[in-house]
Amino acid sequence: MSINVTVWNEFRHEIEMENVKAIYPNGMHMTIKSFLEKEEDLIVRTATLDEKDHGLTDDVLNNTDVLLWWGHANHGDVRDDIVEKVCQRVRGGMGIIVLHSGHFSKVFKRLTGSNCGLKWRDIGEKCRVWTVKPNHPIAKGIGDGIELEHEEMYGEPFGIPDPDELVFLSWFKGGEVFRSGCVFNIERGKMFYFQPGHEAYPIYHNEMIQKVITNATKYVAPTCEIIDTNVGDWIKKPLEEI
Amino acid sequence: MSINVTVWNEFRHEIEMENVKAIYPNGMHMTIKSFLEKEEDLIVRTATLDEKDHGLTDDVLNNTDVLLWWGHANHGDVRDDIVEKVCQRVRGGMGIIVLHSGHFSKVFKRLTGSNCGLKWRDIGEKCRVWTVKPNHPIAKGIGDGIELEHEEMYGEPFGIPDPDELVFLSWFKGGEVFRSGCVFNIERGKMFYFQPGHEAYPIYHNEMIQKVITNATKYVAPTCEIIDTNVGDWIKKPLEEI
Amino acid sequence: MSINVTVWNEFRHEIEMENVKAIYPNGMHMTIKSFLEKEEDLIVRTATLDEKDHGLTDDVLNNTDVLLWWGHANHGDVRDDIVEKVCQRVRGGMGIIVLHSGHFSKVFKRLTGSNCGLKWRDIGEKCRVWTVKPNHPIAKGIGDGIELEHEEMYGEPFGIPDPDELVFLSWFKGGEVFRSGCVFNIERGKMFYFQPGHEAYPIYHNEMIQKVITNATKYVAPTCEIIDTNVGDWIKKPLEEI
Amino acid sequence: MSINVTVWNEFRHEIEMENVKAIYPNGMHMTIKSFLEKEEDLIVRTATLDEKDHGLTDDVLNNTDVLLWWGHANHGDVRDDIVEKVCQRVRGGMGIIVLHSGHFSKVFKRLTGSNCGLKWRDIGEKCRVWTVKPNHPIAKGIGDGIELEHEEMYGEPFGIPDPDELVFLSWFKGGEVFRSGCVFNIERGKMFYFQPGHEAYPIYHNEMIQKVITNATKYVAPTCEIIDTNVGDWIKKPLEEI
Repeated sequence: MSINVTVWNEFRHEIEMENVKAIYPNGMHMTIKSFLEKEEDLIVRTATLDEKDHGLTDDVLNNTDVLLWWGHANHGDVRDDIVEKVCQRVRGGMGIIVLHSGHFSKVFKRLTGSNCGLKWRDIGEKCRVWTVKPNHPIAKGIGDGIELEHEEMYGEPFGIPDPDELVFLSWFKGGEVFRSGCVFNIERGKMFYFQPGHEAYPIYHNEMIQKVITNATKYVAPTCEIIDTNVGDWIKKPLEEI
Repeated sequence: MSINVTVWNEFRHEIEMENVKAIYPNGMHMTIKSFLEKEEDLIVRTATLDEKDHGLTDDVLNNTDVLLWWGHANHGDVRDDIVEKVCQRVRGGMGIIVLHSGHFSKVFKRLTGSNCGLKWRDIGEKCRVWTVKPNHPIAKGIGDGIELEHEEMYGEPFGIPDPDELVFLSWFKGGEVFRSGCVFNIERGKMFYFQPGHEAYPIYHNEMIQKVITNATKYVAPTCEIIDTNVGDWIKKPLEEI
Repeated sequence: MSINVTVWNEFRHEIEMENVKAIYPNGMHMTIKSFLEKEEDLIVRTATLDEKDHGLTDDVLNNTDVLLWWGHANHGDVRDDIVEKVCQRVRGGMGIIVLHSGHFSKVFKRLTGSNCGLKWRDIGEKCRVWTVKPNHPIAKGIGDGIELEHEEMYGEPFGIPDPDELVFLSWFKGGEVFRSGCVFNIERGKMFYFQPGHEAYPIYHNEMIQKVITNATKYVAPTCEIIDTNVGDWIKKPLEEI
Repeated sequence: MSINVTVWNEFRHEIEMENVKAIYPNGMHMTIKSFLEKEEDLIVRTATLDEKDHGLTDDVLNNTDVLLWWGHANHGDVRDDIVEKVCQRVRGGMGIIVLHSGHFSKVFKRLTGSNCGLKWRDIGEKCRVWTVKPNHPIAKGIGDGIELEHEEMYGEPFGIPDPDELVFLSWFKGGEVFRSGCVFNIERGKMFYFQPGHEAYPIYHNEMIQKVITNATKYVAPTCEIIDTNVGDWIKKPLEEI
């Protein structure tokens, strides 16, 4: 069974900043699409902020099983009605992967019910992503962890609800730690947050990072029908004979 | 150390419906206030929907450690700006107890990030609230559980994120079960959802139910300073000498 | 990739009790084997208490990815050295499914670290197994739940550690509830406990029950290499250049 | 209500090794006792390995609400029958705090059902213990965390079941991270594991570490009666009229 994946990207840094463009000439979404579609069972398209409806029309969303989300400086430009549609689809069963600075996106904040703050420092320090659940499907093939030569630091406390599954923890040379790979169950949907991915470092070109994102795409894919759980009325249940 | 408690109630059924008025002549909030303030360390006030700002002015909220919330048919009348203030205070550390039909309140839906649907049937059937975590502070003194002669049925699936702690499960004579006592950690705040409490039955006059709510009030009370976590910018962290 | 499954059964009731023999003439393990091996990717064998080494030689265990365990009146006859081997393999990554009265097996008690007591009553009352996590792979295809005309009652409090995932809750006509489908993460291994399966009722002939057990077998199958984590010494880690 | 606390210590390093004796002339247990008994509601005694019955007679255990456990090189010398008594009392409701190298004690391994391995390196490197649940009672007064100038490194993967609550994460200068403050619910008992405390560094003289251990002692103290859950038979429940 194939999984329909949509990779959403803000896609402004890659246009406006030369250093980012150098790493991702076609945008991060195209890099992510490239490695995901090596998998036979993944059918991948992309969508970006400056497309009509941010590329997330009803037709696209209704045919998406797993959505990936990369946003950063322009979270405020994402339309509230589209944010709500995305959240409702997750609640109904769509999987979602929120990447890096997406922790501050409207989508992540609404789905966690939280403000999602964290500490940060961008000096391109060394980061080690340690596996804490070696038997988790998202960690398959990762072994003890991943070393990133340069990454932005994200540090605790991370203002989220307790994750349902903690898969990775990050270590930063400057002295901080971070819950960097977290699974949240949101009604019928699964959400994975993954910290690595600052735009100024070639994180999504790293094969181990690619493996995590590929694993996660399959893990959060729905196992039940995606339905609308935002019912206007409750489900009234008659008394059956028992 | 005393805990400042505010009991919020929609307070319309008790005015409009004779059968409810007969059970709670001064409103459910006054009944709840009465048993809570028997505790030396609880300082209790009330607030209701039809007061100015729903009784939840900044002054009241900023001096509330634990908020209790009972709402039902008029969730839509609660102002969005006040809902947001309540949610922000929970995120920052205030405790909150959501009662019965409050599962469909704006506050509960925003804090869980979910639609919070459930099955229901109101024939006043027997309900047994079973303790599944006997060592939980909220279950202190409850023993195996509580039997309610008449209660509205709430049934699974309950459209919530996985609770962080499951304290009670309810059995209904008509054939359903429900996760009826759930703790959620929302950033720095603790939230307890408790199912019993339909307006047409004298649930809040039951001494065991009163004990649960009293225990829960103390359990969700903040242990850290309540702060504003909705910071406009992230917390930028300089590199210290390490 | 195929999964090597071993179905272990005490296999004494089916020999000694006519009513059980009538339901499972070749033993419950053979019924379970029959429906599991309809799946292309499952390679299934069986083992029973009265075989040499309970059928669980090193060769069998070392080639088992998922072990199913049904035991009841003769938990005490299972050899401690074999129990320990089973537990070590689970800790190292093997999946395990503990069925019904296996809650009191040495294996389940050692892996949970708990006494695993519960309430019970065997009058063959109606049982409804409700799905509480519709998006869980183990609940795939189950919908709202399963109705069993006759089953033994198991009731809370269930003396276990908090399950990592709660998939099913059972309702019993006589007034009790039970956490009937629970996932536990035990180091590198996944364990699923599933309550239905009293020997005197044809539970394992029920197609929905078969679906749950089939789903669970695939869910607890290892995603990482199964290793020996009972290392005599700790893993001493030299300081690398960082 | 006062809490009866017993601090158990292997108490051999402090006798055999001059450098340890210099830090803890009367043993770590006496240092821990000293700061705990500053609290009005804590009544503290000690017990050590080389006392009769390791100081854990039935009389002592039956009057202990919270047990602290420090062991290291001599886990094997702890008698199995006493280990089992300790575990049974935890299952029945006694709180327990396992310190540092106690992760490899028989008690911790039995209660977690796991092998509890980890990475380690003892070069006295810098360690930062970060708070990830600022609203947790165990983190009260700790703020963002604790810096330890010299500590043994403990690193992931830590071979434990998923903790029920993750309160602290440790960062080590050499490049590792560790889930250093974990709460586990074991039937009716609460267990807290806390990593800091290598015998060669003055960790238990640190006031912030003392605060964590004091908070934890109160947090794991039983809220329900401590009972024997190792019942020889199940609890047979007759059918009541419902």
